[in-house]
Amino acid sequence: MANSPSGDSMLDRLVRILDAFDAQNPTLTVNALARRADVPRATTYRLLENLVSHGLLARDADGQVRLGLRLWELANRSASTLNLRQAALPFMEDINQLVGQNTQLAVLHEDDVLVIERLSRPGSVINQANVAGRMPVHLTSMGMALLAYSPTNVLEGYLERHGETMLTQHPKLRHELAQIRRNGYATFDGFIDTSTTGAAVPILDDRGYASAVLSVVVPLGSDLLPAAVMALRTAARGIARALGPAAEN
Amino acid sequence: MANSPSGDSMLDRLVRILDAFDAQNPTLTVNALARRADVPRATTYRLLENLVSHGLLARDADGQVRLGLRLWELANRSASTLNLRQAALPFMEDINQLVGQNTQLAVLHEDDVLVIERLSRPGSVINQANVAGRMPVHLTSMGMALLAYSPTNVLEGYLERHGETMLTQHPKLRHELAQIRRNGYATFDGFIDTSTTGAAVPILDDRGYASAVLSVVVPLGSDLLPAAVMALRTAARGIARALGPAAEN
Repeated sequence: MANSPSGDSMLDRLVRILDAFDAQNPTLTVNALARRADVPRATTYRLLENLVSHGLLARDADGQVRLGLRLWELANRSASTLNLRQAALPFMEDINQLVGQNTQLAVLHEDDVLVIERLSRPGSVINQANVAGRMPVHLTSMGMALLAYSPTNVLEGYLERHGETMLTQHPKLRHELAQIRRNGYATFDGFIDTSTTGAAVPILDDRGYASAVLSVVVPLGSDLLPAAVMALRTAARGIARALGPAAEN
Repeated sequence: MANSPSGDSMLDRLVRILDAFDAQNPTLTVNALARRADVPRATTYRLLENLVSHGLLARDADGQVRLGLRLWELANRSASTLNLRQAALPFMEDINQLVGQNTQLAVLHEDDVLVIERLSRPGSVINQANVAGRMPVHLTSMGMALLAYSPTNVLEGYLERHGETMLTQHPKLRHELAQIRRNGYATFDGFIDTSTTGAAVPILDDRGYASAVLSVVVPLGSDLLPAAVMALRTAARGIARALGPAAEN
């Protein structure tokens, strides 16, 4: 692969350019894009033309740059998340209506919680989950439920890399994870938003590991929590059944 | 950008590699990938290593290749389709429950109907729409509704490129498009699946153009059609309101 004088490959630069866009920055000027992607401005202009011609990026009428619909198409039409989403969506809508709060579906990815789907509900308490957004494992009920139901090597690998952070936040971590497994769910009082509590239930594969997690966020101290957990547990079983015994994602 | 001896740029090859995966081929062997992407096998192996290390592709335990979750994340977290999907999902679920058939949300993209979202319903009639899949404009109610509510330059451009195909299928095209605009919806008896009828209603922006289309497929000759169309029209207005006056996608 061709390298620039700095040793950057074309692919490195491409990934940094795509990575420059996020939920808070869906459009960028070329200058802002170059800065955020740490790519020289002249190179950015040159790459941009190519990326736009391939549909991976698009330029708005005002010259702002955004991700192209073609990129969305390529990334989504065979996505490994598609089966999971399709199986989960009807159940998520049920939770959304019955519990009356935003509902999230997430997986563990590169030591973060990656949100696969979120259904919003008017009047829900604030939460920080965005579709395709990441959240920290140690500060969310989703992360704790995913970790508690991970294979041993995944859990140990995570702790090797993040043990210190984890133990500061969760001094009795092993005890806590065992408790989550006994309960069948994780709850977490808002560290990200202190007026809320998150509840999360794993969607288990046939080996008993979490292939994903289903969660809601309710107001802190809400009487709703036990009922919300029961709704999540019921839905998570339904999703696991809909996914079938061979489900992996 | 570095070119191979054949004049292919790295970006050309990358897009062809991503394009090799689709709903029918979510995983490929390296040899099948090289063949489908029309990239020499040695080059494919070399690129693969790089793409996997950046998370754009992933290798399964059995050596099969699939799109990486990182690619999904990059393409989705700031996708221009996100607002549209979030606004439409609750209404799509309503249609799904009230009409009892699969419901699709789509946009016009590169002269095709690009499906943005689909909610499935057990017992629905078969339909060919897949999330991030494309369908032909001239053989779907979605395509005809999108075309009827396109700006003049989009319609004329489309007809310049596809006028012949269009007129074979729709000999009275101008009349048909005017009829769709008078009715406020398009229906189309199954050419793709002859036992079904599709009905589609545009989601209009504040200039009166379709920013997207909402559709259901019902059994051919079903008494359900008028009621399904009314449900779609009601939902499409609700989605347009939820998107707000400045909505573009």
